[in-house]
Amino acid sequence: SASVPAAPAMEGLKPAISLSENALKHLSKMRSERGEDLCLRIGVKQGGCSGMSYTMDFENRANARPDDSTIEYQGFTIVCDPKSMLFLFGMQLDYSDALIGGGFSFSNPNATQTCGCGKSFAAEM
Amino acid sequence: SASVPAAPAMEGLKPAISLSENALKHLSKMRSERGEDLCLRIGVKQGGCSGMSYTMDFENRANARPDDSTIEYQGFTIVCDPKSMLFLFGMQLDYSDALIGGGFSFSNPNATQTCGCGKSFAAEM
Repeated sequence: SASVPAAPAMEGLKPAISLSENALKHLSKMRSERGEDLCLRIGVKQGGCSGMSYTMDFENRANARPDDSTIEYQGFTIVCDPKSMLFLFGMQLDYSDALIGGGFSFSNPNATQTCGCGKSFAAEM
Repeated sequence: SASVPAAPAMEGLKPAISLSENALKHLSKMRSERGEDLCLRIGVKQGGCSGMSYTMDFENRANARPDDSTIEYQGFTIVCDPKSMLFLFGMQLDYSDALIGGGFSFSNPNATQTCGCGKSFAAEM
């Protein structure tokens, strides 16, 4: 699905992590429901059916760490720690409100295998 | 999670399909966003990684068929065709707005196996 142009750090550079329009719309809605000045921390952790799993949490902007990558999306900020970025660079986050199989989904060029549950993947590093 | 008491057809009879509070809340929100007088049709179909798959669609109440089972939930109506009900009787629908793994989930006593994707199951009939 169409990717929302982020404010590229440098002209013409594809953002490290991109959001589809649906993902941006839903994240902005979730954030406004929470009322705080929140950003989205995306990361990976060991474990899950295919070896690694995605993590996503809303977080107060003040908690962003100096070595985090920060991606600005039309007023919405994504933060990602450097180790996770190794597995997420070039990933696009999408969202569907389908009754069945709805929710967030990750299309991740670093993943050699993705489990049906969508939450876990394998990557060769 | 706590199950919302449906208007039981007969006193004390557990409803054929039950909704958790979160599921009812989210379904009501989705329906109000669509503005029409909609009910939720739940069913099963052949196919999917474990043999059978759940189906769910909002539908205009006028489309309910005479042989459908109809379950009333505090103003919210679920309809289910008789063949699907064979595989869904006693099922509880839940909903989570978790960023990862959020969405609707089915806990179905008829399912002997449920795939990680949550959308497909096996049942012995």
